[in-house]
Amino acid sequence: MVRKSLRHRLHVQLEPAAWGYGLSPVNWVLCILILLSFIGAILETEPSISDGQEQLIRVLEVAFSSVFMLEYLLRVWVCVEDGRYRHPLAGRLRYLVTPAALIDLVAVLPLLVGVVGTESLMLRFVRLLRIARLAQFGKLSRSVHYLLAAIVSRRYELSISVVVAAMMIVLASIMLYWVEKDVQPEAFGSIPRAMWWAIITFTTVGYGDVYPVTQLGRLFAALSALASVAMVAMPTGIMAAAFSDAMQRGRHELDDPVKLPGSYLDKNSQKQRSRR
Amino acid sequence: MVRKSLRHRLHVQLEPAAWGYGLSPVNWVLCILILLSFIGAILETEPSISDGQEQLIRVLEVAFSSVFMLEYLLRVWVCVEDGRYRHPLAGRLRYLVTPAALIDLVAVLPLLVGVVGTESLMLRFVRLLRIARLAQFGKLSRSVHYLLAAIVSRRYELSISVVVAAMMIVLASIMLYWVEKDVQPEAFGSIPRAMWWAIITFTTVGYGDVYPVTQLGRLFAALSALASVAMVAMPTGIMAAAFSDAMQRGRHELDDPVKLPGSYLDKNSQKQRSRR
Amino acid sequence: MVRKSLRHRLHVQLEPAAWGYGLSPVNWVLCILILLSFIGAILETEPSISDGQEQLIRVLEVAFSSVFMLEYLLRVWVCVEDGRYRHPLAGRLRYLVTPAALIDLVAVLPLLVGVVGTESLMLRFVRLLRIARLAQFGKLSRSVHYLLAAIVSRRYELSISVVVAAMMIVLASIMLYWVEKDVQPEAFGSIPRAMWWAIITFTTVGYGDVYPVTQLGRLFAALSALASVAMVAMPTGIMAAAFSDAMQRGRHELDDPVKLPGSYLDKNSQKQRSRR
Amino acid sequence: MVRKSLRHRLHVQLEPAAWGYGLSPVNWVLCILILLSFIGAILETEPSISDGQEQLIRVLEVAFSSVFMLEYLLRVWVCVEDGRYRHPLAGRLRYLVTPAALIDLVAVLPLLVGVVGTESLMLRFVRLLRIARLAQFGKLSRSVHYLLAAIVSRRYELSISVVVAAMMIVLASIMLYWVEKDVQPEAFGSIPRAMWWAIITFTTVGYGDVYPVTQLGRLFAALSALASVAMVAMPTGIMAAAFSDAMQRGRHELDDPVKLPGSYLDKNSQKQRSRR
Repeated sequence: MVRKSLRHRLHVQLEPAAWGYGLSPVNWVLCILILLSFIGAILETEPSISDGQEQLIRVLEVAFSSVFMLEYLLRVWVCVEDGRYRHPLAGRLRYLVTPAALIDLVAVLPLLVGVVGTESLMLRFVRLLRIARLAQFGKLSRSVHYLLAAIVSRRYELSISVVVAAMMIVLASIMLYWVEKDVQPEAFGSIPRAMWWAIITFTTVGYGDVYPVTQLGRLFAALSALASVAMVAMPTGIMAAAFSDAMQRGRHELDDPVKLPGSYLDKNSQKQRSRR
Repeated sequence: MVRKSLRHRLHVQLEPAAWGYGLSPVNWVLCILILLSFIGAILETEPSISDGQEQLIRVLEVAFSSVFMLEYLLRVWVCVEDGRYRHPLAGRLRYLVTPAALIDLVAVLPLLVGVVGTESLMLRFVRLLRIARLAQFGKLSRSVHYLLAAIVSRRYELSISVVVAAMMIVLASIMLYWVEKDVQPEAFGSIPRAMWWAIITFTTVGYGDVYPVTQLGRLFAALSALASVAMVAMPTGIMAAAFSDAMQRGRHELDDPVKLPGSYLDKNSQKQRSRR
Repeated sequence: MVRKSLRHRLHVQLEPAAWGYGLSPVNWVLCILILLSFIGAILETEPSISDGQEQLIRVLEVAFSSVFMLEYLLRVWVCVEDGRYRHPLAGRLRYLVTPAALIDLVAVLPLLVGVVGTESLMLRFVRLLRIARLAQFGKLSRSVHYLLAAIVSRRYELSISVVVAAMMIVLASIMLYWVEKDVQPEAFGSIPRAMWWAIITFTTVGYGDVYPVTQLGRLFAALSALASVAMVAMPTGIMAAAFSDAMQRGRHELDDPVKLPGSYLDKNSQKQRSRR
Repeated sequence: MVRKSLRHRLHVQLEPAAWGYGLSPVNWVLCILILLSFIGAILETEPSISDGQEQLIRVLEVAFSSVFMLEYLLRVWVCVEDGRYRHPLAGRLRYLVTPAALIDLVAVLPLLVGVVGTESLMLRFVRLLRIARLAQFGKLSRSVHYLLAAIVSRRYELSISVVVAAMMIVLASIMLYWVEKDVQPEAFGSIPRAMWWAIITFTTVGYGDVYPVTQLGRLFAALSALASVAMVAMPTGIMAAAFSDAMQRGRHELDDPVKLPGSYLDKNSQKQRSRR
């Protein structure tokens, strides 16, 4: 009885859907550990930080991985609390091949296969995905949904501005290739090379590593720079209009059923609880 | 009878208006071939890619051109299926001088006149226009129309922001010319030269190949840089407002006749089919 | 009688208010001449264009100035057609001190005082103002009014974003001054020097002539660069909202009296004509 | 009696809440002095301005500090006019520990502790806060409130665009670190180093001090530059929509009680006056 209660309480702590709205304390700690492990992996690449600290880094990495390994094993243990994986063996096996469990597995691979080093950086990047998996409820998720819906609703307009931008970049590259290829063969000797200049100019980054030096080249570059204002203004304007539209629509729709998301979550967690 | 049926089926495949909504399989393939031919023409200019591959490039180009030539001849053959060019000779001649057929002709010129090389790059760029001609129906076209209408409806406001930007650029050029012409005659020795700096600054590209070095020059340049925020913000704001306005108007108009574009296309293709 | 008719017809041609809507043919020509004279003045500063052409430049400048002088004298002659300056002497004297007539006078000064050269560039810039004076009617003027009204209605919000930007620039300058003054005394040796860097960074121009090299300096610079996104997004967002607001208001107001501007101009020109 | 009247009049001049709407003449002078003192502190750091002027600078700083010290003492003297600090001793002591009085005290510290020099720059920066304290009423405050409310209402959407931007920056840093670390160890030898490049690129500042030189590095950098357009467009669009939304809501709410802020302030100042 005690054991069942412990497993149940762990399940509520570990499974976002079982906890309901927001993050459980255990998942809060796990999210912070994931972030710390990721920041550690980034800082570790800087020699002025990591030199002479190889021992500490290895210890920390093993510690992080052990916690995630423990978490993984605990999740496999408690998953039978969920109505979908009730059978001790068949249920657990089905749980092991869910995308969430596979991501959790990838995150502990560095420990399992003993590859602690630069090669495991990508694996540690995968760990960040687990934050998205743990924090999938609440207002942030609704805002993500709202932003995505606004962008998707204007996908055709945004595609067109992408196509127009691509054509302007290609056209500018061809112009500069024709005008500057003899003067600066290194920078403008081919259209792909000129496209590096064109993209850096149209996005207004402007490193200054390559730029035209002939009269005609400067004329085309100046026209490209002026066109870049339109290239930035167009998607910005489309997005602003889409967000404004979605906001007004959302306000009208949410006037009555204000408690909609809360009630949905309550129902969801009630279902979870009633399954026990 | 078999031949007529083949010609008719080819016409439906080749002619976007006869196919109706979306792209026919044959036109899908042609669009992809046009894109591949264009990407090939771009990559070909890069010596590190094309060196030693001259044979392959020539074969590919001849292959692409042959496909487009075949397509051109087939279009001339099947055009009599269209009610407007029904006469075998007079109809075909009238078809040959339509803008669409002329663009198709330009696209196969490189093969006809044997100029396969850098000089034919522009001709191959023309081929891209044929994608626009083939993919002229569907939601993308409606979005193009919608974006253009929004921009056109605000043409006076956009013109004013262009005029204001032009005056700021000219004014900044004159200022920097006066202040820096003696110190940096190469970069600021004349107003046209200073305009290169002004445009690269106002569009916030900022290559860094030329910049003021005197106290007063830096003061004017700093003011210009600050003014550039307004120069970018103004057209962006106008476009955002125009798109937002067009979106709201469009929503009201489309509330009732939601099936308008579909029904229009259905009628159109019905007309095509009833002509046979 | 003939002479009176000629003077009257000239007055209608020269005076925008007497012509009514749009530009009269004579004023069209004058606007083009003003633009040409201005473009000439700009190109003249470029040695590779003007060298050896001194004779031609002087002839052109005298020609332009003579046309504007003739125009000025004609305006003084015909101004008595206007009800406000009816008296041949007192009326003309009053006309001569109107701002419009003074601007016209400044535009012909280069000829009067014989200063044809670089020094007269500013005087020739003044000529551009005369285009604004000649082309003051029509839809462009209404759009200028509409844009200005939208900006003025949000002057407090825009002021705040200017103040916030100024404080961010000053704060970043102080930070970089503290961090980098010893390493790069030339670029960050004082706060005014650091402000050059800060303005070029916050406006995202980024010449790259000065940039931090220390760890801490790069951290502050990175934060400044990230803050620059907000600095650009804020005025853009305010302007977009203001234009959107003005557009919606304008649509409601203009639903009924669509012919308002036309009728106003008709009345205005009728008044002018009835005065004769 | 005369003394009480003087103290009362001083209190009305010094205390923004007692004056009511706008700035009193004395506070106007103080605001200008604060600004001058701050600009002086900035210019003083520039050797080409301050060299040989040490005497003048010290005199000016002592003068400014003395004025602020006098103001501080006067504020302590007149604070008993306020109903909250009526007791000559206990009331004054309570006034001395209010945040406003503590900020005033920090602003005169440079004089008290005799640290007149670069070290006191931060203290003089604190003085700027006093302008915010003095000018807290009027339309500007309402616009600040309105802007903040609009930003806060969209905090989730803005957070998401910050998170997306952060992930794009981290991802681009990792890519460039992998691709360029061997070719340019100084610039891309670790992920934190590559992040300097990534932030300067994504914010479109583009100094040009570091940029990729390999084929693959340029490809990733070009993709990053293109993604930067979305990174700038997204918060701008969200802010534009938020301001537009707040504007429309505000217009509806303010249709009736237009005199709200004025009446509020009148009541406030009446309360102040009735306390005497």
